[in-house]
Amino acid sequence: MSESESGFGVDLDFGDDGLVPAVAQDAETGDVLMLAYANRDALERTVETGVAHYYSRSREELWEKGATSGHTQSIEEVRVDCDGDALLYVVEQTGGACHTGHRSCFYRTVEGETVGERVFDPDDVYE
Amino acid sequence: MSESESGFGVDLDFGDDGLVPAVAQDAETGDVLMLAYANRDALERTVETGVAHYYSRSREELWEKGATSGHTQSIEEVRVDCDGDALLYVVEQTGGACHTGHRSCFYRTVEGETVGERVFDPDDVYE
Repeated sequence: MSESESGFGVDLDFGDDGLVPAVAQDAETGDVLMLAYANRDALERTVETGVAHYYSRSREELWEKGATSGHTQSIEEVRVDCDGDALLYVVEQTGGACHTGHRSCFYRTVEGETVGERVFDPDDVYE
Repeated sequence: MSESESGFGVDLDFGDDGLVPAVAQDAETGDVLMLAYANRDALERTVETGVAHYYSRSREELWEKGATSGHTQSIEEVRVDCDGDALLYVVEQTGGACHTGHRSCFYRTVEGETVGERVFDPDDVYE
């Protein structure tokens, strides 16, 4: 796809399923907060509104992060990788990114040790 | 899959294609370096050897990062996200992560501005 066709300043490859992985990184601490997916619509809304949007594969719909929990992500910068098939959202995270209450979804090591901070109680946020 | 079946300390979901996205983060600077994919074999070798391995979707084979370029990634920690379907490799990166010569594959904004540092000339590294 050419630059003008993509509608963005770089070529993007949304692949067969129309999705690219989008990594959210804390602008202040550099922590990797979560990995989700975006389609073209989600990326366009993210860029236009300055608030992180994804595509929920489980709910099969556009997902404005924090619309339910209030734990929104304000966009500082959106980056694209060399192949144009992955995104990096550099964000100011309100509260925690993870539905478990942790600041980051990557709160465990592969050995099973919890190393991430819990910042809210999901029972207080999700009904 | 149960913990014991997974062979790791946490449940992992490699999905229909046997792959999970793996984000590499610079242990020193916190920069997100790249996003690639890992299958079970790649993750096992990463954990066992302490050197980042991925699965190359284009070459359809196990990929030891830096085997050709020398730009290896020494593993400091492997993290797993809440759903067990994404990995975070926290690494010490030798040279640059990106085949374009940039330190990070996320060297451009979605508007097309180059913001990342170029640390080597690909012509000197790849023949």
